[in-house]
Amino acid sequence: MQTTPDINQSTTLREKALEFVERDSIKNAILGVIIFNAVTLGMSTSENINGVIGPALKVIDQVVLMIFVAELALKFFAYGIKGFFANPWNIFDFIVVGLGLLPDKGGLSALRGLRVIRAMRLLSVIPQMRAVVQALLDALPGMGAVIIMISIVFYVFGVMATLMYGHDFNEWFGTLGRSLYSLFQIMTLESWSMGIVRPVMEVHPYAWAFFVPFIIITAFSVLNLFIGLLVNTMQAAVEEENEAEFENLRELVKSETDIVDAHVTEMLSEIRALRAEIAELKGGAK
Amino acid sequence: MQTTPDINQSTTLREKALEFVERDSIKNAILGVIIFNAVTLGMSTSENINGVIGPALKVIDQVVLMIFVAELALKFFAYGIKGFFANPWNIFDFIVVGLGLLPDKGGLSALRGLRVIRAMRLLSVIPQMRAVVQALLDALPGMGAVIIMISIVFYVFGVMATLMYGHDFNEWFGTLGRSLYSLFQIMTLESWSMGIVRPVMEVHPYAWAFFVPFIIITAFSVLNLFIGLLVNTMQAAVEEENEAEFENLRELVKSETDIVDAHVTEMLSEIRALRAEIAELKGGAK
Amino acid sequence: MQTTPDINQSTTLREKALEFVERDSIKNAILGVIIFNAVTLGMSTSENINGVIGPALKVIDQVVLMIFVAELALKFFAYGIKGFFANPWNIFDFIVVGLGLLPDKGGLSALRGLRVIRAMRLLSVIPQMRAVVQALLDALPGMGAVIIMISIVFYVFGVMATLMYGHDFNEWFGTLGRSLYSLFQIMTLESWSMGIVRPVMEVHPYAWAFFVPFIIITAFSVLNLFIGLLVNTMQAAVEEENEAEFENLRELVKSETDIVDAHVTEMLSEIRALRAEIAELKGGAK
Amino acid sequence: MQTTPDINQSTTLREKALEFVERDSIKNAILGVIIFNAVTLGMSTSENINGVIGPALKVIDQVVLMIFVAELALKFFAYGIKGFFANPWNIFDFIVVGLGLLPDKGGLSALRGLRVIRAMRLLSVIPQMRAVVQALLDALPGMGAVIIMISIVFYVFGVMATLMYGHDFNEWFGTLGRSLYSLFQIMTLESWSMGIVRPVMEVHPYAWAFFVPFIIITAFSVLNLFIGLLVNTMQAAVEEENEAEFENLRELVKSETDIVDAHVTEMLSEIRALRAEIAELKGGAK
Repeated sequence: MQTTPDINQSTTLREKALEFVERDSIKNAILGVIIFNAVTLGMSTSENINGVIGPALKVIDQVVLMIFVAELALKFFAYGIKGFFANPWNIFDFIVVGLGLLPDKGGLSALRGLRVIRAMRLLSVIPQMRAVVQALLDALPGMGAVIIMISIVFYVFGVMATLMYGHDFNEWFGTLGRSLYSLFQIMTLESWSMGIVRPVMEVHPYAWAFFVPFIIITAFSVLNLFIGLLVNTMQAAVEEENEAEFENLRELVKSETDIVDAHVTEMLSEIRALRAEIAELKGGAK
Repeated sequence: MQTTPDINQSTTLREKALEFVERDSIKNAILGVIIFNAVTLGMSTSENINGVIGPALKVIDQVVLMIFVAELALKFFAYGIKGFFANPWNIFDFIVVGLGLLPDKGGLSALRGLRVIRAMRLLSVIPQMRAVVQALLDALPGMGAVIIMISIVFYVFGVMATLMYGHDFNEWFGTLGRSLYSLFQIMTLESWSMGIVRPVMEVHPYAWAFFVPFIIITAFSVLNLFIGLLVNTMQAAVEEENEAEFENLRELVKSETDIVDAHVTEMLSEIRALRAEIAELKGGAK
Repeated sequence: MQTTPDINQSTTLREKALEFVERDSIKNAILGVIIFNAVTLGMSTSENINGVIGPALKVIDQVVLMIFVAELALKFFAYGIKGFFANPWNIFDFIVVGLGLLPDKGGLSALRGLRVIRAMRLLSVIPQMRAVVQALLDALPGMGAVIIMISIVFYVFGVMATLMYGHDFNEWFGTLGRSLYSLFQIMTLESWSMGIVRPVMEVHPYAWAFFVPFIIITAFSVLNLFIGLLVNTMQAAVEEENEAEFENLRELVKSETDIVDAHVTEMLSEIRALRAEIAELKGGAK
Repeated sequence: MQTTPDINQSTTLREKALEFVERDSIKNAILGVIIFNAVTLGMSTSENINGVIGPALKVIDQVVLMIFVAELALKFFAYGIKGFFANPWNIFDFIVVGLGLLPDKGGLSALRGLRVIRAMRLLSVIPQMRAVVQALLDALPGMGAVIIMISIVFYVFGVMATLMYGHDFNEWFGTLGRSLYSLFQIMTLESWSMGIVRPVMEVHPYAWAFFVPFIIITAFSVLNLFIGLLVNTMQAAVEEENEAEFENLRELVKSETDIVDAHVTEMLSEIRALRAEIAELKGGAK
């Protein structure tokens, strides 16, 4: 910010930090730590390995966590709050590392497992992986309207299923949440008939008139989601292709008309010469 | 209709109604009521909430229903019978709201659930949702022939399955309806083998020669349905693309030939001037 | 064949028969009979209806069968053996009607069901349905190589599964036929893990190394089958599109160069006129 | 290598071997042996056939194996180590034949089954099959990044599932390997809910928050894999198409401008003649 005369070549603490975290060697070191941590996390799933070097693995995990926290703190300092959160990958790292700082109480095995999500940083640190994830996310906005439509269909069918079948099939449709889960299962076609609809039809014989249309509507919507996605991707590819072809054509048409134009221009100069001669002739004739 | 001299600015009752139902504020208010109703319908699925404010939810539902009926009645009046039913979305609203007016007897939990379908009006009121649904429906006609073909295949295989396996597997193939349902399940590949075909094969060892071709035929037909849909969508996109490209090309060719043509025209005037001079010369020579 | 002088306007018996079977009214009558028969066949699946008008349905079926046999016999006569079997749809009708002539013994319920396949004639009689089926069949040759590859993979995995797991899981892999059926089930992903592979893994812990690659290979092959099909269909559509566009371009280029050419031709005549005048001038100057 | 003066026409032993293994009759003979062996391997799965000609089948198998070993040994000699392994199909044959040489101990029924993989040589010997397999393999590199991404997601979810559910559901998530297998099953949607997630949810009620995102992420990734593959294939087809169209256009533009150019050139010669006449006239006028 304030550049005092004696600090001329980017030597404020911030700039130093920035230069440090963006250094390739540091990035590679962090990548190494992530891979190393992914392996140690994998090893900690084995009871045999845990029995022998379990405490060591825990220590390693703590050290890795501290390295990550230090790295993020440094980035935080280097970019400032605004700059840091402007990059969505930083937000991703922030959340994923932050989950490892949650208290690790005995019973909460779920939270213990969440630490592992840290290994997902492989996706945020390797540029090629970033590109793939980016491509997946870029596809989302084009799917927005269809996703909202599917959500409305899910909500309405969920409420209906709860009101109609919740009483008799409490485990599957007892609450709105259970109904939504069961409908998701039915949408994936998993055991929809033998597991869910046939038992329901024993109590409500016309249940098929609810579930079969649901399957057809969602299948058709997902199909259209997919087609929309595909056509968009294809169109972008074709557009690029077409631009290249147009460039080819421009050159072709230009070169062909240039030949004709060269002849025409040559003729024009012939005619001008002719006119000059005529003028001369006229002068001579006068 | 009849414009009396003193009522000059669209003040017949009909026109007033029309102006009213098409007003943005009214449309937004209706949208608000739909969303509010969707939430209260969702809340009514929870027994806890129902225990506390159940009666209130019922009153709200009745009020919302009256608002919807009033809105539709107004539209009906504003557009006239013909104008009202000319818009398929009005028919949709009419049916969906009408289902809420059915008698709500204790045992008919199915009818109770149907009220909820009213929340589907979200699809008919939000313009973006309308567009998505429209796009889905637009795809249907192109699929007509294949859908009829699949229906014929279903019917024939359904009758065959009923005649061949109905006696031994009454629950699955006892009637034509049950056979069609079971074949739909088999088409979705849900438990087709472990759940249906293997048990059938214990009685009819060659049942696989009936079901495996059925799976292959329907899978292949659905695949073609999908490909047809995709190619149509793609072709429309490519056609648009091509038209844009053609416009580009037209301009390119035009501008290139215009350059040549300008030179040619310039030359033409040179020659005409030349001819005039020659004529002058001839006159002088005479 | 032999045209006697007194029979001049296509009045041999054969030509009469040909004219008769190709008449629209006859075609529609046959279509009506097929639809009527499809309905009666459907009715015969209901025990209630069968109890009341069962005998009538059987008589109808015999009459319909006779109509079909008569129609085919007439076509056979009209086109001759070679002409009749040259049309694959006739072969289809021949087989499908022929199945109804098989003896209808009590126990052979399977054969009884096969009669129903006659209703498939709806596909061969309605021109639009023919087109759809034709389109499906046209797609087959392009898929030949991949289908043969999948067959080889199936055969090899089938033999391996029989040799490796046939002894312990006789019901699933006891013979080559059973193995192929089970592998088809696994390819459709139906109960592949919970139903088949997990039980197998309890005896052969490394069975996953056999089945998971099988699933991936077949899924990938089917995917490629589908992509090949899609690209072919698309390419045909794009080619058509391109030809139309090329026609547009040809006209565009032609009309643009014609304008230039008109100017050039005009100029040419100007120059010729000029030359004539010069010649005249020269003559005068001499 | 060393060509002695008296052996002039490719008669070293190596060249002889090379000429021999590349001879069409030899290739067809080997293909015949592969098909014959595929049939005998298939026959050996039948206990009935085995009871009658089992010993003969074993002898045949040994003879076929010796033929294959001899063929590969000859190729090895003909091409040299480097040349032999430069062709991936040779590596494939080498492995596939080599598996038949493994000791055939009684209990190792798995190894006994592996012999059969030899029939896969049908894929490596028939050129059309090679092309199909090649096309499948060519598609792999373009899928690399997405496959790595899916692998990372699998690994991370696998470790998490083992840590969170391994204790309570040892059979499904007890080790990292079991978790990966179960997640693969869940990705294929086989019994994911009724078989796995619902039982898990009875102990861990929020397990759906782990498995449903996993399903959506992997489904979406596989979808993108597929779209990427499709767009690549399509683009290659369109590019070819475009090149052909460009060639058409080049000819069209050329022929059209050639017409104009011919006129222009004609005119140019007219003008030159004119100029010559003028020059003559001038000479005459002087």
